[in-house]
Amino acid sequence: QGILERLDAGEIVIGDGGFVFALEKRGYVKAGPWTPEATVEHPEAVRQLHREFLRAGSNVLQTFTFYASEDKLENRGNYVAEKISCHKVNEAACDIAREVANEGDALVAGGVSQTPSYLSCKDKTEVKAAFQKQLEVFMKKNVDFLIAEYFEHVEEAVWAVEVLKESGKPVAATMCIGPEGDMHGVSPGQCAVQLVKAGASIVGVNCHFDPETSIETVRLMKEGLQAAKLKAHLMCQPLAFHTPDCGKQGFIDLPEFPFGLEPRIATRWDIQKYARKAYDLGIRFIGGCCGFEPYHIRAIAEELAPERGFLPEASEKHGSWGDNLSMHTKPWVRARARKEYWENLKPASGRPYCPCMSKPDGWGVTRGAKELMQQKEATTEQQLKELFQKKK
Amino acid sequence: QGILERLDAGEIVIGDGGFVFALEKRGYVKAGPWTPEATVEHPEAVRQLHREFLRAGSNVLQTFTFYASEDKLENRGNYVAEKISCHKVNEAACDIAREVANEGDALVAGGVSQTPSYLSCKDKTEVKAAFQKQLEVFMKKNVDFLIAEYFEHVEEAVWAVEVLKESGKPVAATMCIGPEGDMHGVSPGQCAVQLVKAGASIVGVNCHFDPETSIETVRLMKEGLQAAKLKAHLMCQPLAFHTPDCGKQGFIDLPEFPFGLEPRIATRWDIQKYARKAYDLGIRFIGGCCGFEPYHIRAIAEELAPERGFLPEASEKHGSWGDNLSMHTKPWVRARARKEYWENLKPASGRPYCPCMSKPDGWGVTRGAKELMQQKEATTEQQLKELFQKKK
Amino acid sequence: QGILERLDAGEIVIGDGGFVFALEKRGYVKAGPWTPEATVEHPEAVRQLHREFLRAGSNVLQTFTFYASEDKLENRGNYVAEKISCHKVNEAACDIAREVANEGDALVAGGVSQTPSYLSCKDKTEVKAAFQKQLEVFMKKNVDFLIAEYFEHVEEAVWAVEVLKESGKPVAATMCIGPEGDMHGVSPGQCAVQLVKAGASIVGVNCHFDPETSIETVRLMKEGLQAAKLKAHLMCQPLAFHTPDCGKQGFIDLPEFPFGLEPRIATRWDIQKYARKAYDLGIRFIGGCCGFEPYHIRAIAEELAPERGFLPEASEKHGSWGDNLSMHTKPWVRARARKEYWENLKPASGRPYCPCMSKPDGWGVTRGAKELMQQKEATTEQQLKELFQKKK
Amino acid sequence: QGILERLDAGEIVIGDGGFVFALEKRGYVKAGPWTPEATVEHPEAVRQLHREFLRAGSNVLQTFTFYASEDKLENRGNYVAEKISCHKVNEAACDIAREVANEGDALVAGGVSQTPSYLSCKDKTEVKAAFQKQLEVFMKKNVDFLIAEYFEHVEEAVWAVEVLKESGKPVAATMCIGPEGDMHGVSPGQCAVQLVKAGASIVGVNCHFDPETSIETVRLMKEGLQAAKLKAHLMCQPLAFHTPDCGKQGFIDLPEFPFGLEPRIATRWDIQKYARKAYDLGIRFIGGCCGFEPYHIRAIAEELAPERGFLPEASEKHGSWGDNLSMHTKPWVRARARKEYWENLKPASGRPYCPCMSKPDGWGVTRGAKELMQQKEATTEQQLKELFQKKK
Repeated sequence: QGILERLDAGEIVIGDGGFVFALEKRGYVKAGPWTPEATVEHPEAVRQLHREFLRAGSNVLQTFTFYASEDKLENRGNYVAEKISCHKVNEAACDIAREVANEGDALVAGGVSQTPSYLSCKDKTEVKAAFQKQLEVFMKKNVDFLIAEYFEHVEEAVWAVEVLKESGKPVAATMCIGPEGDMHGVSPGQCAVQLVKAGASIVGVNCHFDPETSIETVRLMKEGLQAAKLKAHLMCQPLAFHTPDCGKQGFIDLPEFPFGLEPRIATRWDIQKYARKAYDLGIRFIGGCCGFEPYHIRAIAEELAPERGFLPEASEKHGSWGDNLSMHTKPWVRARARKEYWENLKPASGRPYCPCMSKPDGWGVTRGAKELMQQKEATTEQQLKELFQKKK
Repeated sequence: QGILERLDAGEIVIGDGGFVFALEKRGYVKAGPWTPEATVEHPEAVRQLHREFLRAGSNVLQTFTFYASEDKLENRGNYVAEKISCHKVNEAACDIAREVANEGDALVAGGVSQTPSYLSCKDKTEVKAAFQKQLEVFMKKNVDFLIAEYFEHVEEAVWAVEVLKESGKPVAATMCIGPEGDMHGVSPGQCAVQLVKAGASIVGVNCHFDPETSIETVRLMKEGLQAAKLKAHLMCQPLAFHTPDCGKQGFIDLPEFPFGLEPRIATRWDIQKYARKAYDLGIRFIGGCCGFEPYHIRAIAEELAPERGFLPEASEKHGSWGDNLSMHTKPWVRARARKEYWENLKPASGRPYCPCMSKPDGWGVTRGAKELMQQKEATTEQQLKELFQKKK
Repeated sequence: QGILERLDAGEIVIGDGGFVFALEKRGYVKAGPWTPEATVEHPEAVRQLHREFLRAGSNVLQTFTFYASEDKLENRGNYVAEKISCHKVNEAACDIAREVANEGDALVAGGVSQTPSYLSCKDKTEVKAAFQKQLEVFMKKNVDFLIAEYFEHVEEAVWAVEVLKESGKPVAATMCIGPEGDMHGVSPGQCAVQLVKAGASIVGVNCHFDPETSIETVRLMKEGLQAAKLKAHLMCQPLAFHTPDCGKQGFIDLPEFPFGLEPRIATRWDIQKYARKAYDLGIRFIGGCCGFEPYHIRAIAEELAPERGFLPEASEKHGSWGDNLSMHTKPWVRARARKEYWENLKPASGRPYCPCMSKPDGWGVTRGAKELMQQKEATTEQQLKELFQKKK
Repeated sequence: QGILERLDAGEIVIGDGGFVFALEKRGYVKAGPWTPEATVEHPEAVRQLHREFLRAGSNVLQTFTFYASEDKLENRGNYVAEKISCHKVNEAACDIAREVANEGDALVAGGVSQTPSYLSCKDKTEVKAAFQKQLEVFMKKNVDFLIAEYFEHVEEAVWAVEVLKESGKPVAATMCIGPEGDMHGVSPGQCAVQLVKAGASIVGVNCHFDPETSIETVRLMKEGLQAAKLKAHLMCQPLAFHTPDCGKQGFIDLPEFPFGLEPRIATRWDIQKYARKAYDLGIRFIGGCCGFEPYHIRAIAEELAPERGFLPEASEKHGSWGDNLSMHTKPWVRARARKEYWENLKPASGRPYCPCMSKPDGWGVTRGAKELMQQKEATTEQQLKELFQKKK
């Protein structure tokens, strides 16, 4: 059954986790460019991660095509010596996802994301052409549906949806925004309305903010759609990092991004709470993004097992709420084999010289300043720095 | 070249990370029993993790035979339906490790660890027989050397070394103890002396404590050996968790063990500091245990690259000290592309309702109380609980 | 010169700190009832605290008549054996304040605050009569102006202002509310408008929230007045506790209230920041409430010394920004004798087992629930508890 | 009854709190010099603080003669214009203490403390002469007993005891050291032995460390005395700040000293725990030093009320374990009126951007370096800085 049939029938669909962060820790993706050439260079590593998410309960395997538009791959020079073409990266991503999806009950979703072309102010035609190129691969490889994800500007997201929609396949669209809305100040409710009007059947958020914040953003999207009398399925794929101290632009501005985020990693119990809250809000496509490891996805599947009626395969290696500790030799460890224990635990960081919260960098930098910078970088970066030094 | 040739020549040997924690998060190992039947059930997952550690710079691949003694595997009932024999688990572990080791410049080490038989007070003959059984597999599969690891009692560790030594292969021995010594109160220095006298060529610690604490323990071992005028290579494979608040028995007694340890996970920069300190103390076999992911091992290899003269393969996907951020579009993110930034960052947890430190459970429970409990569990658990309630 | 002459001339008027908290720590006020019978029982202690605030720079000495309405004093049975009359408490408070005010350049302000009568739903006449009784004392003792403070409901505050206004003396009015407004949901802007319309010449907030939050509330009041084209002077007398984790009802709901607030106490530098921010917003009556000790008031006077042109008397015992450390024998202590050091210090708590933030009790308890409880307490307290257990 | 009669009879004697910190916050003492000229300048402020401690339960009122040796008062130029003589400061301190002691059941103790002369390496004769001068005042004013306190070097403390002992009055001696001992490395046990041999009847510690650390130091003193078969009463007057992160030289080296210590202030419940632990160790002279306010002293008296059979006067304004909250209108505040609540509360700091622990400045600076610096300051300060930069 297709994605819309499932959602229309009221099923819970579980997404997967973020590939770039997981594969960066495994040694296959470079932080900074975050590009997916590993699909060609090390397909076994990509395949294994897909398999782990499948075992953990994912119903959707997203092709590892994040940032795989031609302009992005070229800009950053992330090709290995012999030049891997953008086309090959996207094709290999589709093949690997399909291969693993066939091992279980999962759909393959082709994904596009924000492009450097948009940020460098190129025009609609050029940006759409980039999406079109990736779409051609997705159609050739016959993915099950399409996701436009990780957009900071609703305008670009709408363009992506318009391109993807022409394929005739179902389209989902998620933005990497928080409750304050997109980078031009469009509110989450308005973003959702525009995306649905452009043709998205599923809307929501991904990346940039923690589960709690992301659910709040989806709540605002839901209200926007209701006010506009529009209907769409809701989707949420947040970070697995606690980021209550984020500013408008999310975790990238936190001083810990991207190499000091460890103390913020969510526990499986945090994720169970997220899954429950997402479900209670009416979200039915529930997954994750950066920071989500297979055990986080399994936590979603376990939390919602009563509603779904089954556990994922990987739960053969996991006791519910720690009950696999009930045979430990130490009685105080055995005492942890219960839900109340883990629900109420406030885990310590073991880092007494570190604070709990950070002040985001770039805090309060206005869009105007950012545009200024992008236009004449050499002269304005110093101005910008002074500007936000003053604001802090 | 063998392990001793390398160490004798002054080479730095980089170990791998802990398999049970990494594979638990990937969905292949069950927390609680922590047994390695995945070598038979899901060899591709074990193979992939070995490969990632190899790419990250490991010179030693340990067979995934942790807790794979017959008594342990039987006790816990961790076989799948069709009964996987202990023998098969150990054999498959050797095959996988060797297969991956051949992809690079790595040695295969067969490993044995503490047994339930010892804890249930069975005799020397029985405990040694358990090690002997595993050793037979290691000899048949011709591993390069042997490691006796994760021992809380030096007496059992000595028995293990004695068995392994008979093989004629080099033997390393590590205990999971802190500066306070083993569970019978034998000091780290004395433990090292006994292990070397029993035949170990390499001694040190693994697991249970954070890098800083573990280095302190090895320092005490080194002093013990010097005082006894004994010579041995030093080895350290600590947790990748910050645990300054541990009691004598290590991280197992922390309330966060094993499902709430996330805020304690070390950053790559923490691990670089560890690698440097370990090197400065004269430790030349430097690796990790629970919590170490491939990028942590890579951090050791990168920190010591000046001494070794080369970077590991996975560094093709990693800029030194964040320099891959130097092309980021945001100037404040680009400003993070330097060593001083990451060295001095005090990462926030994003968890304002959580403390920094925990009080270990079971704090101060004496060996006497523990033995009492093990003998007549049904009646004494309550007594024990009262005992340590009083002590807290 | 009177209070309005000073404010109209653009002078900065510095208030005093909270008496009930300061005298509780000195042993003269009982937490819980928080009543001011010390004016009769131990006048020397009250006099000494007034004197310390005067030395620290206070231009206004508030009579220690907090909660000194007849209904409050009777309700709580806070009389000593021989029954001290409400009248005597108020008279003594006026006499002591005047005596000390005459030692320097300070005005005496008679103060009334919220009454139990209002909360127990008695009528306007009865509540006004309580204020009238206190006012008679203030008129007899000829205080310089009047303050209606610590009101949670703007309706009651308006009644108080109406009573006080009849005296012909200038009236200031402050509410103990945060940015969410009063307990009936009236916004800060609307509260300010109603108070000014009732006759208050000075409006603002006191108590219940930290300086940062309180300034935000006054900012909303200012906007409300501007929108209504009303004019009034602004006033702020916040807590000297950090309370970013407060709910709508302020610090009383924090689990630490009132006997565990120590880690939240503001430093003198925190208060200097507050004074500057308050000044920058246009607030000219700047003081404190619970938690403010004399040195906190001195910090206001020192921060604003450039604008005012003079330092308070107590600055003879205080170097600006720590410069009295410049002769210390230890060079690293001497290095603290500078503004940058203290401005940037993030002071540690020395409490590694404690979190940074609390969840307020009673979080989300609606007014409806509260009224329910007050009406039929015996049966509904349990219900209420269940209600907010569910909400948490 | 005199101090020794009381202690010999097994009575608990409660000391007072630190005057310099309390009066600094009230505006009468200057941080940095910390000298007591307030006895002449503002006797009413000193008198009031004595009175508050008396009400709180102090059995001993120490003359406010801290740092009142002639060399100290001269060095720092802390005289007001008309030159207050050292003699006058000491005399006024005695008169005020006696006046208040007569209001209750308290003894007056004359106190001497470390001198600049000792640190600047002057000889025994000169240092002893400084103590002798103060002693003359104490004898003329007929104090009840003598305390030599706040010594970092046992040698100087012994000289002080020798001088005081000649008076024939009982002598107590406390050092401001931690478990690592005095600044020359003399252990707490050895310090205690030397002080008793010099004539002290009561020994212990004051200032520089938190209650927990100070009790540990007294425990070591007790062991030292037992080993030497000497007898003396034990005394403890610690900080009311949490300082687990102190180095050898105590809170002065913490970055927060002296103007950012607020988050470290002990609650009354922390002090009750301290009083109980001190009592359990056999300490019978239990008081406080810097940071102790009257309510902290009351907490000692309340904790030990069962043993003593009575409450202090100020307990008329304090309910045991918060029971004065039992009439609060909010049920969740009423729920705080019980011992378990306050005993188990882990109070939050409300400071999410601040850490829990600090790294002391000057960490690891050796005595050698310090002496070097004191001899040729101009050239060596930079060297010293480099030295401890390296050590950190």
